Amino acid sequence: MRVDLLAVGTELLLGDIVNGNAAWLGRRLADAGIDVGRSVVVGDEVGVIAAALRDALAVADAVVVTGGLGPTHDDLTRDAVAALAGVALRREPALVQGLRDRYAALGRQMPARNLVQADLPEGATALPNDRGTAPGIRLVVDDRAVYAMPGVPHEMEAMFTTAVLPDLLARAGRPAAIVSRVIHTAGVYESVLAEALADVVTGLEAAGNPTLAFLPAGGRVRLRLTAHAADRAAADALISPVEKEIRRVLGEAVYGVDGDTLDGAVHRLLATAGATVASAESLTGGGLGAALTEMPGSSATFRGGVVSYATDLKRTLLDVPADALAGGAVSAEVAVAMADGVRRRLGATYGLSTTGVAGPDPQDGQPVGTVFVGLAGPGGHRVRPLRLSGDRERVRGYTVVAALDLLRRHLEFARPWDAPR
Amino acid sequence: MRVDLLAVGTELLLGDIVNGNAAWLGRRLADAGIDVGRSVVVGDEVGVIAAALRDALAVADAVVVTGGLGPTHDDLTRDAVAALAGVALRREPALVQGLRDRYAALGRQMPARNLVQADLPEGATALPNDRGTAPGIRLVVDDRAVYAMPGVPHEMEAMFTTAVLPDLLARAGRPAAIVSRVIHTAGVYESVLAEALADVVTGLEAAGNPTLAFLPAGGRVRLRLTAHAADRAAADALISPVEKEIRRVLGEAVYGVDGDTLDGAVHRLLATAGATVASAESLTGGGLGAALTEMPGSSATFRGGVVSYATDLKRTLLDVPADALAGGAVSAEVAVAMADGVRRRLGATYGLSTTGVAGPDPQDGQPVGTVFVGLAGPGGHRVRPLRLSGDRERVRGYTVVAALDLLRRHLEFARPWDAPR
Repeated sequence: MRVDLLAVGTELLLGDIVNGNAAWLGRRLADAGIDVGRSVVVGDEVGVIAAALRDALAVADAVVVTGGLGPTHDDLTRDAVAALAGVALRREPALVQGLRDRYAALGRQMPARNLVQADLPEGATALPNDRGTAPGIRLVVDDRAVYAMPGVPHEMEAMFTTAVLPDLLARAGRPAAIVSRVIHTAGVYESVLAEALADVVTGLEAAGNPTLAFLPAGGRVRLRLTAHAADRAAADALISPVEKEIRRVLGEAVYGVDGDTLDGAVHRLLATAGATVASAESLTGGGLGAALTEMPGSSATFRGGVVSYATDLKRTLLDVPADALAGGAVSAEVAVAMADGVRRRLGATYGLSTTGVAGPDPQDGQPVGTVFVGLAGPGGHRVRPLRLSGDRERVRGYTVVAALDLLRRHLEFARPWDAPR
Repeated sequence: MRVDLLAVGTELLLGDIVNGNAAWLGRRLADAGIDVGRSVVVGDEVGVIAAALRDALAVADAVVVTGGLGPTHDDLTRDAVAALAGVALRREPALVQGLRDRYAALGRQMPARNLVQADLPEGATALPNDRGTAPGIRLVVDDRAVYAMPGVPHEMEAMFTTAVLPDLLARAGRPAAIVSRVIHTAGVYESVLAEALADVVTGLEAAGNPTLAFLPAGGRVRLRLTAHAADRAAADALISPVEKEIRRVLGEAVYGVDGDTLDGAVHRLLATAGATVASAESLTGGGLGAALTEMPGSSATFRGGVVSYATDLKRTLLDVPADALAGGAVSAEVAVAMADGVRRRLGATYGLSTTGVAGPDPQDGQPVGTVFVGLAGPGGHRVRPLRLSGDRERVRGYTVVAALDLLRRHLEFARPWDAPR
């Protein structure tokens, strides 16, 4: 079975929003062993949307559409699906009632315009939307399925999981298995990884199954192994020895597989050690704390943090000595003092700090991208100087990853401190 | 002139990364008055990439490709462009030298594999890459242009700006002007905005130019007006009266236009008032501070913040009274005390706070999505209770926007305090 994705919205072509839905759907479909052939974005024109639906159904068994089901005049996916099938739209009393009930429950007045969301192409089935007002649409045309869902991610995600995916799997019968394993690495450049793994890659290219992809993003590189086989067990058996070899070659750089995250690894290692962490941030402005609270339950191992953006706050909130700050706020010494100050002030086992020049302008005589991440613990401290390239957003993002990775490696591999306490 | 976008990478179809490049290019092309017809994603197969290039050039004057120029075995865009043109790849000595120089400057050893990045289809021109190792490719086939750029965003963005866009504009001659104006709003639902603007929308639909799109994302709704005219001035003249009417109808909800950001509006208003802000965060974990430091120069008006994730830190770091915390950490009273505590502890004019239940589980007997954002200033305090739907990420994101908007409206419209000090 091959599925094509179609995202509808001039705002996507104009770049007002990013097509994150395609990525989310791609992951879910890959996990389900369903191939995505192509992912297309078109603007808000009935004829163009209908043509894109026709193109997709010429080669794919199903097309999953996102966007264009809202209440406004530029939401035209309903009309395009009807045009594709050559049928009319009909207002469904049950959907009208559902809209009224939903607004009543929210205590809000329903704008009259929203009633268009109760329109359905003849022959189509409505897909329930637990999280918003626009129902989805399922319509089978010439034995190929069209699923149209709202573009709002949290509405689309729930609808896909509860209604679209089960229907797709039923239509597909039992597919041959496609299994992917993602190996997560941090702290090593893509080209260095590729060179280290040159023999592995050569072997995989010769055999052709599994395949290996390098996926660099945000200071990390993921390695994706994908195997095709008759069933999951056979696919797993193809992947396992390759994964083992990659882990052996890359050592400390690997922090997890599949759904593992770098912050998740840090929390897991802290919990195992019965330890906690607190953050002291300068250039990242709170991004490190935000990363350390991304996952539910993070309060068990994350105490809190201080954003000492103004230099005087590094003294008053984190006890960084005045003479450490004499040469400016960007130094290994300041990073260590911030980490040490926050762990003591907030009563955490470890303090993790960031200081540096995010840009666009140099600061304290240091060029943009000069960053220090610091770690302080009961036995001593470590500091890692970084020389990052890229813009302000990239420098801040990489700094957060480097700080998390500093703590992760320390906890996981019991690295010695740079200096004792 | 019509341009199609083509992103290459199985990792995009599998959802390992999001196609942010398409959004970035869409914005830049729209700003330049160049229409994007379609945006397509395909996987790492030479034949599939070449076919997608052919499809695009059948309808578009140029195709802008991202991805597949890296050093690894699955980087195949070079080969596909050569296949499209029916020419061979040739290793360019000048590009080889450029690669060697770049690695030497970085003090790193060049992996041998990287030499494929010096290969160019015959007849093509290399596009210089100041930020990475992979040069881009420009090749004209049957008077239609193919531009291939690396997928790494900060490399692609520089290359597009310095090499691709100027070439596109030169090929286009002087295009008819397409001018867009984005009006940014916060704090009002999309459907409520649509209802308020029903008359405006009806008028625009009748006239057909400019058009209006509603773009909800992350707790904000942007309204995009797009006008076509013979030149910029004529397009501006079409947009201006509509923008004025929209602003009149929506009042306080509008925080800016085009490149304006909500955090930027807050910093601007603070600077005008000669004031500063400090953040006190619970459920957002640092996200509010990160938002307040996104833009360069934010240190002039943002002092810093405290992430009091553990409840005891709300007392010790922010002086929240013990009896305020007796009923749990999620209340209007705690939000106000946090805001007040941080402004006094950090010496800021205003304190801005977040407390609430991000989920997935209820907390202190409060359901997920129960949030309070608080503001304290010299004259008193304000607090805004929110009842947010969605998952943990959405609740945290909306909370940051609501906090920024609370301060923005207070500063911009001199709203009275809920209670005096």
